[in-house]
This record gives sequence, structure tokens and C-alpha cells, in this order.
Amino acid sequence: MTALVPADVVSRLKSVLGPEGWSTDPDRLAPKLVEWRDRWSGHTPLLVLPKSADEVSAIVGICFEAGVAITPQGGNTGLVGGQIPMGEILLSTERMRAVRLTDTFDDVLVAEAGVTLAAVHEAAAAVGRRFPLGLASEGSATVGGFVSTNAGGTQVLRYGSTRNLVLGLEAVLPNGEIWNGLKRLRKDNTGYDLKQLLIGGEGTLGVVTAAALKLHPVYASRGVAICAVATPQAAVELLNLAKDKAGGAIEAFELMNREVLELAIRHIPGVRDPLAAASPWYVLAEFSAAEPGSAEAAMERCLAEGLERALISDAVIAQTESQAAAFWRIRESLSAAQKPEGAGWKHDVAVPVSRVAEMIEAGSRAVLALAPQARVAAFGHVGDGNIHFNIVRPAGGDEAAFDALRDAGAHAVHDVVMALDGSISAEHGLGSMKTEEARRYKSPVEVAAMAAIRLALDPKRIMNPRVLF
Amino acid sequence: MTALVPADVVSRLKSVLGPEGWSTDPDRLAPKLVEWRDRWSGHTPLLVLPKSADEVSAIVGICFEAGVAITPQGGNTGLVGGQIPMGEILLSTERMRAVRLTDTFDDVLVAEAGVTLAAVHEAAAAVGRRFPLGLASEGSATVGGFVSTNAGGTQVLRYGSTRNLVLGLEAVLPNGEIWNGLKRLRKDNTGYDLKQLLIGGEGTLGVVTAAALKLHPVYASRGVAICAVATPQAAVELLNLAKDKAGGAIEAFELMNREVLELAIRHIPGVRDPLAAASPWYVLAEFSAAEPGSAEAAMERCLAEGLERALISDAVIAQTESQAAAFWRIRESLSAAQKPEGAGWKHDVAVPVSRVAEMIEAGSRAVLALAPQARVAAFGHVGDGNIHFNIVRPAGGDEAAFDALRDAGAHAVHDVVMALDGSISAEHGLGSMKTEEARRYKSPVEVAAMAAIRLALDPKRIMNPRVLF
Repeated sequence: MTALVPADVVSRLKSVLGPEGWSTDPDRLAPKLVEWRDRWSGHTPLLVLPKSADEVSAIVGICFEAGVAITPQGGNTGLVGGQIPMGEILLSTERMRAVRLTDTFDDVLVAEAGVTLAAVHEAAAAVGRRFPLGLASEGSATVGGFVSTNAGGTQVLRYGSTRNLVLGLEAVLPNGEIWNGLKRLRKDNTGYDLKQLLIGGEGTLGVVTAAALKLHPVYASRGVAICAVATPQAAVELLNLAKDKAGGAIEAFELMNREVLELAIRHIPGVRDPLAAASPWYVLAEFSAAEPGSAEAAMERCLAEGLERALISDAVIAQTESQAAAFWRIRESLSAAQKPEGAGWKHDVAVPVSRVAEMIEAGSRAVLALAPQARVAAFGHVGDGNIHFNIVRPAGGDEAAFDALRDAGAHAVHDVVMALDGSISAEHGLGSMKTEEARRYKSPVEVAAMAAIRLALDPKRIMNPRVLF
Repeated sequence: MTALVPADVVSRLKSVLGPEGWSTDPDRLAPKLVEWRDRWSGHTPLLVLPKSADEVSAIVGICFEAGVAITPQGGNTGLVGGQIPMGEILLSTERMRAVRLTDTFDDVLVAEAGVTLAAVHEAAAAVGRRFPLGLASEGSATVGGFVSTNAGGTQVLRYGSTRNLVLGLEAVLPNGEIWNGLKRLRKDNTGYDLKQLLIGGEGTLGVVTAAALKLHPVYASRGVAICAVATPQAAVELLNLAKDKAGGAIEAFELMNREVLELAIRHIPGVRDPLAAASPWYVLAEFSAAEPGSAEAAMERCLAEGLERALISDAVIAQTESQAAAFWRIRESLSAAQKPEGAGWKHDVAVPVSRVAEMIEAGSRAVLALAPQARVAAFGHVGDGNIHFNIVRPAGGDEAAFDALRDAGAHAVHDVVMALDGSISAEHGLGSMKTEEARRYKSPVEVAAMAAIRLALDPKRIMNPRVLF
């Protein structure tokens, strides 16, 4: 997989792109060859920087003909190594940064692959709409990346994953042809929905060059609260109560344990303990609704009943926009809060919501059997059954011994998750890191079907060859 | 395509299924060989009636080995001929009728392929939830059918098409293998999302045997109104106003013209003119929200502003549940209302919402140029840009002459739609009726990609061979 790229291919790519369109400058390449947790460091013979779908088409066409592999990269925020080349041509979308159009009648925003999520949010807000994908990495993550990985985040409970927020795509297929599927239709039943393969395809079936994204209304009323709950099961029951009482108004429902909150308090400037007394678990809930005052009323009704039923022991409601933002800052800092403690074991898992409590309990037991002093930092999107079940190094423990158990820890957690009909990658994808692990659990029927589809569209396997099946 | 099925294949199928599992009785077959508008009449050497995924697997395995084609059929409510066999083995899911589970923590309902949509609605209601897919054919349409055709209906604006309502699938692939993808996860990024190919695959990539369907909360407040609007453009502007004022609360937003309303008043018992004065166009709008009273308030605010801005000339708000049901009965009778007028030209088209008015205007001009006395019966899901643009025979006109222009009429309408970046089949699919028409408009890149995927999964093209590319 680190086979040399023939010199004539490199020179053909350079001449097609012109001097602005490629680089081999080590300083220019360096930030694109490592991921943010420093777990992978890659290499490439050539960084290509196309500025249009036509240029992407030319690049992929040349590589397809020569059988040369390509790794596409957006904002380089992926957590499973899928964007880091190991000898492949590195295709960055950083020069494809146009928001081509916004339309409030169609509730659509068409953006090129290199536009950041933050820029999408801004462009939507400028026309009185919003794009409800919430990622902590929004300043770096790009359209091409969040589409290709079917990114999740904090608003999936109400709006679904990226898959549910895409109306159409423009992409370059593995043979170099441009597929113009940039429709902005709400309904189109005219054959297989090809964009669904590219969404979450992790760059293995082509390069997404632009997307038509679905916009949503901005709501007049909003309520944000942090609640202390005794157990994950209490959180799940509180969610169910909220669905009964205020179903359509639940915007987000996030869980975190005391352990990870304390890391945030310790390491992240400005994060403070939200409640007077410590609680083993917390829920951050947001409600929103079209009618002024309605979300706040719904939230207060849910919290009152949660207190009455003893699902909640205490709660604090954000009184101002800045307090609401501070609550969300806690939640969004939880990944960064773990970093100073050293590289932990990270598991981005999902189970049916009804089984979240069981998963956390059995997962904790399995991990502590391997590393009795380890700390469980669990948080995530309980409304989606998606928990970031992370294991932090024992304080002052033996780092090398802990690191050596990483794979065993992952197997132990994943065994628990799969016994509960779960997923070993809820929202991060498989990348190069988890593909082999996924083979342990996937049925041969499913792997064979995926491989057959890939072979049909990319017979030379030039697109991100080390990723997926 | 009407090649004889070898006798030994028929006898192997019979012996695998046992006496309850197949039929050649003409009376038993007859209702499955014609579609409800009597436009197609099919034939089959054998009706197979599996009662489990294992039996489906055995059937498809035998047919795959022998290269014998299969047409799967659910409730036989399809409108494009995809479920009518022309010599293929006819596989009916009518004996697969179990609702396997419902769970309100996971908000999921797992139902087998032959369960009707009405039965899904009942099972959801029994646990205090709902499944927001609204089809006039709910008493007959089945899970396998509405999943395989990615059915749309009246609630897509808020909840999306069937694609957005499916968490997992169990299916038998064209080689006879069972794929168990019956997960009930909200997030699972572990490779290509295979279910997305089966959803809307019209039975060409396998037989859906069961689905995990996403349930939604029941809302405490609801408002339904019929508004008189002068033009389709006024309807689109009223929708945009409603999105700004009451975004998340819009449940449905349906358009109909006077012509089709009059057919319903004439032919459907119990349908009455909803407003005192006739209007060229009407909107049926529904609002719903979690907070008691909130939907009604939002609706009244929108209607008041619509009147003030002169987008609406008159409106009537349903005062009771039975009045709301009566309003919806008008909408749901519009297909049946056309039938007594004779077979019209039917077009299930979509354009971007911003172009609906343009499409109706240009489409009407194009049709009237061909058949000046024809009547345009336009109605549908304006919030999705999906209009059932149907052309009714001239009253007392020459039937044969009108029928002879059907294909020319379709081309004319579809040319208009495609010039506006639309779709020639918004929600009905292509089936055997529209596949050739779709070839006129699809890019070769897209058709080739679809054909490659199909060949990869069904190398002998045994699944619904006359349907799709």
C-alpha cells in the first residue's frame, strides 16, 4: 500500500493542475499528515489541490488509468485515520470553498466540499435559516468530510445524521467521471439513491465535490437545562418522559458522567461545576419550538415531572443565551478535556436506547477487569444510544502497560456492545483504524455485499484503499 | 422476459413450500395480476407465498441457481407496474404478517413485510406513538412495498420519506442469502448503508422481509385548515411565511386546484365544498406541536398574517376532530375522484419548491397545446415540490384520440419538469412503466453506476428484471 507512485503520473498531475494546484513542500504537507490526537502520521508523494469538480475529475481520471491510489481529505478532523495517506496521492478540497447558493423557498444551501461547517452555519443564518448539524470541530470540519463520514453530533435526535440533511451531491466517481446529483428535491424516486452510498462511504466510492444541504427553520423559543441524575437508566427514563410530554420539542439530550465533567473543570478554562452538589451523572437537555414561550414551558413541565418522579435530583435552567452557551461549552469541551490525561482508549459506540444503561454497566465491568485503576469517562448522545465510552489512564499509573491493553480493551467493549445489537462505530466511521475490528463482527453476507458494490464502482480500488472492506 | 419457467424449478419451489405455500388457482391469482387502475394485466406460472425469511431465502436461492426471475409483491397498490409479473414467479408477502416488537424507549416497531400500513399505525398507537407515513392506500399497502418503493405521502415535509423512517431491514439478497440488518440503532457508521439501496430499490436488489420502523411522539396539539389561494405561487409564499412563523410545527401542506376538488365533490360521497366561494386553488395545512394549544396558536398566527398579506382570500379552521378528518378525506379522495372520468394522463413529478408555480404554468401550457379541451387536475405535496399533475379527459371528448396522446403528454410534462431540475417520479417509482422514460433524462454516468451496482448484487438479473436499469 505504500507502492511508489510512478513519476510520469506525478508529472501529469502537476501539469494538469498548474503551479497553484499541487505541493510537495514539507511545511505545507505537515499539518495534513498527522491527525489531531497524534495517533497517525502519514506520507504522500504529492498533495493535489483542485479548485473545481473538473480538476478533481482530471486527477481521478489520471489515477484511475494508472491504478494509483488517492486519499481524499477535508478539514482533517477525522478520528479513525481515514483521511491520512500512507503513500497515496493526497487530495485536499481546501481550495473548493464556494457557497454556490442559498434559497429559503427550497430551504437549501449548496456548498463546495471545502466549505467549513462553521461557514455553512453562517451562510444559513444569513438567510434566516439554520443547518442543524452540531460538531465541536465545526471550525475545521468541511462539507466533503462530514458528508463522506455521515457525521452525527448533538442534534441527531431531532434532525438525524448528515444523511438526513443532504438533498443532493456532486461527486467524482472512481473512474473520474463527474456525477451531477446536485438536485434540491425533497422527493425523487427514480432508481437507486446513489448519494446514500457516497454519504458515509468514507471516500471509497468517489470524491464528494459539492452538496445540496437541507436548511431548517430557526425557532422562536428555546430552553436549555442541566439535570443531575443518579444513573444512565434514570437519564433514559427522563428522555422517555420528555418524549411523552414534549415529544417534538426535544432538540438534544446529552449524557455525561462525573468523571469526565471533572476533567473538563480541571483542564478547560471557564468550565465550572454547573450544580452545587456533585452527581454521578448529568443530562444536558435542550428544547426548542416554533411558538414563543412553548419550548421553555415544555421543558419546565418535563423537569417538574422528572423531579416528582425522582428521576432528577437537581437541575439548573439557563436564564440567558450566554448561560445556555456556557452549558453547551461544557459538553463540547469533553473530548479536549481528556487529552491532557494522555491517550486513552476511545470507543464511539451505539446500542438501542433501551440498552444504554446495560452497556455502560457491562462495559465498565469489562474494562475494569483489564485495568482496575482506569477511569471511565462516558458521555454522549443518549437520545441516539450513542455513548463515547472512553477510558482514561489511571492517574500516575504505568502508561506503557495501559497502552498495551488498548486493543484488548476495545475488543472487550465491542463484545459487550455487539451482544446488545449495537455498533462499534456510531458516528466516527471505520477509517483505517476500525476496519479490521469491524470484520470481527460483521456478517460475511454484509461484508461481501459491500465489497461487491465497491468493486463494481472502483474495480482498481484506487479510492482510499485501506479504508472499509 | 416471458420465458417459460422450467418445470423442475416449479416443482422444487412447490416441494420446499408445502401445500399452503404456493398457488396456481386462477381465482387466487387474479387480484394479484391486475393493478387497481386496470392499466396492466400480468401472468405468472406460480404464486409463491412464503411465511418466513427462511422460506424467501429458499425460493430466491432456487431461482438464483436456475436463473429464473421473480417479481415481489406486497399490497399491490403500486402505480407504475413494478409489482405485476409478466411471466416471472410471483412472490407475495401476504403471509408474513407479524409485528415482531414495539419498544417506546427505542421508538421502534419491527414488522414483517406483509403487515399493512394501517396495522403499523394501529400497533404504534397502541403504545402511545405514531408512525408518520400517510398514504391513502394504508389499508392495503404493506411494509415490504412501502419500503421497497420509498413511499412518500402527506407527511414528508416534516418527517421525510420512508427512507427517513427506517432504522433497519432484514432482506433476502438476489443470491438467496439472508441479510440481517434489522438493527434498531439511530447511528451506525460501519460501512455502506446497504438498507438505503433496498429502500427505493423496487425489489431489484432483494426481497425486504422485515423492517425496523422509527416511531415518533404523539402531539398534544393540532390544527387543520383549508385556505383559498389565488395561485400556486401564493401557496408557496404562504408556506414560506409559515416556516418563518411556525417552522417546526408544520405537519403537512397540500395544494389542490378547483378542477380536482370539483371532481371529488361530484364523485365522492360526503365530500362537500369547504368554503362558501369557489377559489382556483386551495391549501390544506396541518400544524402540530408538543405543547397544548401551541399548534392552534401557531396556525392562527400564520393564517392571520396570510390574510393580511393577501396570500389567502378565505380560510376555514377545523373546529373538531371529525371536521379535521373531513378535510383530510377531501385530500385523500382526489385520486379516486378522477377514476370515473376515465383513464387520464398521470404525472407524479417534483421540482424545487421555488419552481412549483412555474412548473404548473408551463406544464399546463404544454398539455393544452396537445389537447386543448383537457382538464388539468393538479394537487399534491407542495411543501415537497411534489405535484400530481394529472390530465383528465375532455368531457364528452374523443377518448381514443386523447389516449393516443398519453405518451406525448408525458414527454411534454417531463420536459418541463426536467428543465426545472425536477424528477419524473417523485414518489411512485419507475416500475416497468417509467423506466424507459427515465432513460431519456438520466445522465449515462448515473445509469451506468446503477447498472453496475445491480450487476454486482444480482449477476443473473433475476429480481424484478423489467424494472429499473
